[in-house]
Amino acid sequence: MARILTLTLNPALDLTVRLAHLEPGEVNRSETLLTHAAGKGVNVAQVLADLGHQVSVGGFLGEANPQAFEALIARRGFGDAFIRVPGETRSNIKIAEQQGRVTDINAPGPVVSDAAQAALLKRIADIGAQFDAVVVAGSLPRGISPQWFQGLLAQLKNLGLKVALDTSGEALRAGLKAGPWMVKPNTEELADALGHAPDAIGQLHRQGVEHVVVSDGAAGVTWYRPGAALQATPPKVTVASTVGAGDSLLAGMLHGLLSGDTPEQTLRRATAIAAMAVTQIGFGISDDAQLARLESGVHVRTLTEQ
Amino acid sequence: MARILTLTLNPALDLTVRLAHLEPGEVNRSETLLTHAAGKGVNVAQVLADLGHQVSVGGFLGEANPQAFEALIARRGFGDAFIRVPGETRSNIKIAEQQGRVTDINAPGPVVSDAAQAALLKRIADIGAQFDAVVVAGSLPRGISPQWFQGLLAQLKNLGLKVALDTSGEALRAGLKAGPWMVKPNTEELADALGHAPDAIGQLHRQGVEHVVVSDGAAGVTWYRPGAALQATPPKVTVASTVGAGDSLLAGMLHGLLSGDTPEQTLRRATAIAAMAVTQIGFGISDDAQLARLESGVHVRTLTEQ
Repeated sequence: MARILTLTLNPALDLTVRLAHLEPGEVNRSETLLTHAAGKGVNVAQVLADLGHQVSVGGFLGEANPQAFEALIARRGFGDAFIRVPGETRSNIKIAEQQGRVTDINAPGPVVSDAAQAALLKRIADIGAQFDAVVVAGSLPRGISPQWFQGLLAQLKNLGLKVALDTSGEALRAGLKAGPWMVKPNTEELADALGHAPDAIGQLHRQGVEHVVVSDGAAGVTWYRPGAALQATPPKVTVASTVGAGDSLLAGMLHGLLSGDTPEQTLRRATAIAAMAVTQIGFGISDDAQLARLESGVHVRTLTEQ
Repeated sequence: MARILTLTLNPALDLTVRLAHLEPGEVNRSETLLTHAAGKGVNVAQVLADLGHQVSVGGFLGEANPQAFEALIARRGFGDAFIRVPGETRSNIKIAEQQGRVTDINAPGPVVSDAAQAALLKRIADIGAQFDAVVVAGSLPRGISPQWFQGLLAQLKNLGLKVALDTSGEALRAGLKAGPWMVKPNTEELADALGHAPDAIGQLHRQGVEHVVVSDGAAGVTWYRPGAALQATPPKVTVASTVGAGDSLLAGMLHGLLSGDTPEQTLRRATAIAAMAVTQIGFGISDDAQLARLESGVHVRTLTEQ
């Protein structure tokens, strides 16, 4: 069991509404509305807890509506390292119609002040040494610059923590400069951040990024370490929802690496945990027998020897 | 200052989303999303508190998301007489586009079990005697029959409480049979409940309903007591939102009657409080000088002598 901190700088409340048909401009009656505390780091934390690790969650939380997060934190026994900031944590409304059409309405989160940013750095300085690894995942809230984000990752690394990064765009570009221990972009995010340079992966390794885990949906996962690359293809599954699949993959990789599993077993199980997320509306490890079946269906091969 | 209990059997979380234009099937970015604890009785309670009364709020609250209500209760110093029930309090999503189109998505609330219904009756039996009046407002949640609702009103009346009722449809028809002290339907709700019988008001008086307060939007308010009727016309105001206007009227009427104001002054102020709600996105008495100006602009006349 490892001690892991996950940081979600821009968490979200997910509101999922189901109705027969959305009529704009009218009063629509929905069948169900469900609220979930979400955000990539919060999702990763839940899968890590399913895998038996001791987890704390942190980042910034709007003080006007922290309750869904606080309830989750209490239920899962997480440590609470969230800095409360004025305003509401953003809500992402997902309107799912019977015919399959999905309308998303994503609200902006609170603006994170310099004082709140400083408070998070201080919190990390105070508690960072307790952890073996830290996951930094998701987008940047308003008020946070890529430069500050790079500094945050550098501070985490200086504390001796293994830093796993999962973000995109400008935040990913800035974060990579800090040389995190692991990154988990998908194919598009990687191309967007690095272009299509032939030696992009080698360049990351030279910057100090030890593990580059590139996900490509149903096509599988490629894991590049200096001198070795493994590729895993998941078994075919019926897709219920891809929500949390990438977060599950990241949690699985971290689990294997921190538990001392072989590289092959690490990637196999991580890929199976992600496939398991895809079979669910939510995600998480609810059925060990199903996970074992999925693991045995993952195909892992050595991609290159450098 | 009076001690008043308001009961909201089917409260709602109001989520107001503002965006430029809603595109179904797409990812929409909203400018703001605000969450409010709402429901007619909860709204009435806030205006009564603004008017200086000591207020408790009760009804049924989903135990999965009571926090916005609990925060409001703490902030306003309300007594908490809500029975917690399994599930989430319903959410009403209001999507307001720049061009003025509004799309509502109303979710169902929790099903209220027989045990929860019995728990509310017991709570009322325990605490009812503390109050001078009770407001019962809003729709019925799933699981509650009109017959049970009639029994609830009868119990409140038997405790010696002045019962003010604001609901519609079948719940209003059932509630009227219990002979509440006051009802506050709008013109449509009254016609829907009683038809267009020429002596509908007289019939209500004979059933024991002392005060029939009928609202008709900008056209004003008519207040029928046995033997007397007053009509008030509000001053013209710029409409920001009609949310909470009817609840403000009810609170104002209750305030005047419990404070021993003259009928003319009671109706004048209640009409002004409702007009003030219309000038706001929210409602409530935020500006005494504005309220005084609106009061002086209300025209009150004796409608009939019976």
